[in-house]
Amino acid sequence: DRILVGRDDEHGGVIVEMESEQRLDLDPRLFSSLLKASISRWRQQGKKGIWIKVPIELVGLVQAAVEEGFYFHHAEPAYLMLVRWLADTPNTLPANASHRVGIGAFVFDENNQLLVVQEKSGRFRGSGVWKIPTGVVDQGEDICDAAVREVKEETGIDAKFLELLAFRQSHRAYFDKSDLFFVCLLEPLSFDIHPQEAEIEAAQWMAYEEYAAQAFNQKSKILQLLAEVCEARRNNRYSGFSAVSTSADYSKGGSHLYLD
Amino acid sequence: DRILVGRDDEHGGVIVEMESEQRLDLDPRLFSSLLKASISRWRQQGKKGIWIKVPIELVGLVQAAVEEGFYFHHAEPAYLMLVRWLADTPNTLPANASHRVGIGAFVFDENNQLLVVQEKSGRFRGSGVWKIPTGVVDQGEDICDAAVREVKEETGIDAKFLELLAFRQSHRAYFDKSDLFFVCLLEPLSFDIHPQEAEIEAAQWMAYEEYAAQAFNQKSKILQLLAEVCEARRNNRYSGFSAVSTSADYSKGGSHLYLD
Repeated sequence: DRILVGRDDEHGGVIVEMESEQRLDLDPRLFSSLLKASISRWRQQGKKGIWIKVPIELVGLVQAAVEEGFYFHHAEPAYLMLVRWLADTPNTLPANASHRVGIGAFVFDENNQLLVVQEKSGRFRGSGVWKIPTGVVDQGEDICDAAVREVKEETGIDAKFLELLAFRQSHRAYFDKSDLFFVCLLEPLSFDIHPQEAEIEAAQWMAYEEYAAQAFNQKSKILQLLAEVCEARRNNRYSGFSAVSTSADYSKGGSHLYLD
Repeated sequence: DRILVGRDDEHGGVIVEMESEQRLDLDPRLFSSLLKASISRWRQQGKKGIWIKVPIELVGLVQAAVEEGFYFHHAEPAYLMLVRWLADTPNTLPANASHRVGIGAFVFDENNQLLVVQEKSGRFRGSGVWKIPTGVVDQGEDICDAAVREVKEETGIDAKFLELLAFRQSHRAYFDKSDLFFVCLLEPLSFDIHPQEAEIEAAQWMAYEEYAAQAFNQKSKILQLLAEVCEARRNNRYSGFSAVSTSADYSKGGSHLYLD
């Protein structure tokens, strides 16, 4: 019997990547019978987890896979990953990515002025609240780089990452995913502000005391703690985590270790 | 015209949750024509991002949505989230969850003995390498709780979270997602070891020097840095981040702030 072409993974499983170029002519009924034959073979071979990656062009095959007992593992814009556990042993398939990661950046100039922005959208739109620049860390992006990028994008200010001051983990923030928000301290390398048109209403250097005195900050326990941290850090009574560039043998690409 | 029932989100978009109970009789062709009419209406109303959540029981509707210009945003075992940007303005839809989060736990007893394990699976299987307990943080789980849970599961030891010593961010670790690994310091509350049968080959208290002297540790820059951190922490020359329980107004559930 013909079966689907897959490769073995490191955990006794099989990964099948449907390729849109070769398989645009693949009829769902043919796919279904190939899948049945494949499952039978894989079970004989003692395979455990079976992964099928379906590019969005082949979406017509998804229903057939679900009918053969597969379920959704994760999806990205261009593909859907389906999985089925075949073995009699307990299912040890890894969980899907669980966290979104964000950053906020404290950038002080030499006169203790803080770089702040007013946002054009979101919950603070039109509120007059001055905030530190914040943003989402892209997949594959280092936290320290994301802080520098967001500050540059929102305000035009070039800056250098100094230290991670603190971070917050919260839950059910977004499609039931958890959230990690890293508060970074940056040193400005330029001082002329050019606010981003699409997202930023206004940006300026502001006396730190004025920023901290806003009602919005006074009401928030977290922002008060962060204000204390900033103050202590600037008086050398607090140490955050520095970023050390390193590599991990078991991960592609580089990585950073954050430590005191 | 009938259109799909949706609710407005906070960003000018619409969220449609297909309900499997009511819609098991929904024919893909009827869904397709409802969707066309809905898109036309939403466009007139100036709606931006349109979300359609399809439970796996209604997988037969997915192809019709893709044919109407929707693409995959994310998926969990029981549903697939599709999205389409309708507005003429740039697409500002949020990215999918990007990170997996793990923990490792240093647990020292009063005699400077470290709690270590040998794993039954993975790359260290059969290698004789003694490691600290590690594991994956569940979606919705606090990092400090995950460290305590993993130590208990793998070794039977009850412990209390003391401090976060350091963390590492790496990339393309797993289905191209990024990875955050938090190294925690815990205080043991019990000392009798009961290794988990399924995953742990052996567990013991081991002299810290012996752990650190393993060839595997000597070869790893990260593990050497962490050994230095541990040593400095135990001599009160290093401070990690403590966990402060707090709440965020814009997130459901509690959260923790980690700071020095």
